[in-house]
Amino acid sequence: MTSDHRRIDAPKLGEPYLLTPGPLTTSYEVKEAMLRDWGSWDDDFRAMTREMRTRLLALLGPGAEDFDCVPMQGSGSFSVEAMLGSFIPKDGKVLVLANGAYGQRSAQTMAYLGRDHIVLDKGDYLPPRGAEVAQILADDPAITHVVAIHCETSSGILNPIDEISEATYAAGRKLLVDSMSAFGAIDLRPSDIRFEAMVSSANKCIEGVPGFGFIIARKSELEAARGNSHSLSLDIHAQWAAMEKTGQWRFTPPTHVVAGFLEALRAHEAEGGVAGRGARYTRNRDVVVEGMRGLGFETLLDDRWLSPIIVTFFCPADPNFEFSRFYDLMKAKGFIIYPGKLTVVDSFRIGCIGQMDEHVMRQVVTAAKATLNDMGVASAAPPAAALKERAKLAA
Amino acid sequence: MTSDHRRIDAPKLGEPYLLTPGPLTTSYEVKEAMLRDWGSWDDDFRAMTREMRTRLLALLGPGAEDFDCVPMQGSGSFSVEAMLGSFIPKDGKVLVLANGAYGQRSAQTMAYLGRDHIVLDKGDYLPPRGAEVAQILADDPAITHVVAIHCETSSGILNPIDEISEATYAAGRKLLVDSMSAFGAIDLRPSDIRFEAMVSSANKCIEGVPGFGFIIARKSELEAARGNSHSLSLDIHAQWAAMEKTGQWRFTPPTHVVAGFLEALRAHEAEGGVAGRGARYTRNRDVVVEGMRGLGFETLLDDRWLSPIIVTFFCPADPNFEFSRFYDLMKAKGFIIYPGKLTVVDSFRIGCIGQMDEHVMRQVVTAAKATLNDMGVASAAPPAAALKERAKLAA
Repeated sequence: MTSDHRRIDAPKLGEPYLLTPGPLTTSYEVKEAMLRDWGSWDDDFRAMTREMRTRLLALLGPGAEDFDCVPMQGSGSFSVEAMLGSFIPKDGKVLVLANGAYGQRSAQTMAYLGRDHIVLDKGDYLPPRGAEVAQILADDPAITHVVAIHCETSSGILNPIDEISEATYAAGRKLLVDSMSAFGAIDLRPSDIRFEAMVSSANKCIEGVPGFGFIIARKSELEAARGNSHSLSLDIHAQWAAMEKTGQWRFTPPTHVVAGFLEALRAHEAEGGVAGRGARYTRNRDVVVEGMRGLGFETLLDDRWLSPIIVTFFCPADPNFEFSRFYDLMKAKGFIIYPGKLTVVDSFRIGCIGQMDEHVMRQVVTAAKATLNDMGVASAAPPAAALKERAKLAA
Repeated sequence: MTSDHRRIDAPKLGEPYLLTPGPLTTSYEVKEAMLRDWGSWDDDFRAMTREMRTRLLALLGPGAEDFDCVPMQGSGSFSVEAMLGSFIPKDGKVLVLANGAYGQRSAQTMAYLGRDHIVLDKGDYLPPRGAEVAQILADDPAITHVVAIHCETSSGILNPIDEISEATYAAGRKLLVDSMSAFGAIDLRPSDIRFEAMVSSANKCIEGVPGFGFIIARKSELEAARGNSHSLSLDIHAQWAAMEKTGQWRFTPPTHVVAGFLEALRAHEAEGGVAGRGARYTRNRDVVVEGMRGLGFETLLDDRWLSPIIVTFFCPADPNFEFSRFYDLMKAKGFIIYPGKLTVVDSFRIGCIGQMDEHVMRQVVTAAKATLNDMGVASAAPPAAALKERAKLAA
């Protein structure tokens, strides 16, 4: 399938583009693949599960043979909780690296589990650096695991996972990665970056629809995970062992979502895999950032930290700007944008992932320009407080 | 929509009927409703979530105003675990009534949670009776909750939930019901049967596709559940509180599956709600049981205990009968049946739920007859051991 042409088609049925970090705009083919029913016990569906696991593993590149892939029902956060509960022993201790909502959620999950943990809280968007991690690990020999967020979608920052991995293993500890919004578009290859396990979900850079996540873990960790989990449903060892034995999911899988995801994986390969997908998203980001800056908007992050996944823009200081109105007017023009999550200054986000290309991103910029005009916003420049906030990153 | 005519259409794309207890054969309209993408944060999707919760609650009939509905991502077992973890306090004690795999799974979940419980294990299919429950509760005043399976799909038995509820509340304890495969086709009305909470899932008698479950619980129990859960993802109180406040699911919902489910709920209402759906399934069961008995097959259960959900048949004693061949030949004829789960004698199951009517069930019987012929099975009569097993139920 040469999908370059189809990709730039508008979604059918007149629905808006989802400029959000998942659920996102998927291809019509992905959704068409859901137009039949499968028995989850039947051989046909077992073959689909097998193909899915094989294709996901292959995205790791060299060294993939030491890993296995375990899909897990529920949203991505269910898979993160499954990873934490299954791979961190009850007497382990975790360092959670937080710079946004998803880091905080991992810390909150550890609190639910009642397992020992500390949090390096970098606030809304500052990146956790390798040297800081090394220092904390040196100071606290009880820490067994480090949990890092690959791309923190709260701000859109691409965290320095390479530095974090190096510091973790230099200190003889283990790394677990929440690569939810990055995997499939940004390399996470064990030959480059050492880790024990990572999670992502169906409705991110592979461009499936939501309904399950997946864990890719070192086989030795999967074997050692037996008996760790606090939850029957979220027990990765049990899910893996049953799947290896029977080819089935332990409990009813979201069969239609899996069928759509398989179609999405095939399209991902046809686009050139992680490199091809990442290149399109990077171009999407470059076009929207350049265009929005041209309108006077400013990004929260310097270019060095911008991910090709989602970008945070400051809300304009102009008193005529009101986010909910901006949202509604953009939606009426066919684009659903995403609210911001910064605690200090007002912001919004524009996602670069899903079935969109640079032509669509240009339309987004055109729509934003028209919307500023509709609202009577003369300047998209942020308030001084926002720029002061941003200066912290450079410091 | 007068769906009587459409309902008897064969599934499109030439796929087989799923005579299984979910995933099951759904209407084409349910699947068509998945042909677009939604932003989970957007008002349009919040309205869908609201309508779904309202429609599900209405199925309770009088007294529904004391309850609320909380959807939960994952398979049905995730919702069962969420119910147990959220409504049973950490110092509670549970009596689990087990007569098959799903009762055993509840007991296993309690073991994962590390909360006190005992199991009344009735084996493969014998029903837990009210008098037994009363006796156990009288003997053990520490028991705070009883967990019962409404329809145990392992055997297909419809458990005497009315007797169990009466015994539970006569002893001043609380009842939690796993109504996974029954809700929507068999009444569970708080005005008739008292309970605190129940669970079911999208891909059972409402005839949606799999991807989430839902909990219907007394509001007082939802309020009291704060802080009970062992799991962030499966915390019903947190899911409920967030949904009440924002109209959103806490974590990414399976948007497409929800859209399909809404379509399924509308069709459920058009068919006459629980009564209409139950009547069709009952007719499906009566036709398949009568037809299969006419071929010489025998059911595990006496008529008194047969549910309109799924029926267990003994495998024929004839040495030419082999289940895996029977399965493949039935599949080739367009019908996917379900293996048995009895530990003592060989059996298989035929589901009565999903988009099928009595005409389809007659085709199933015709296909079974032809398949016996293909296999050279002269008699479908079960071995003597099977009939001896069944005699236990009458005793």
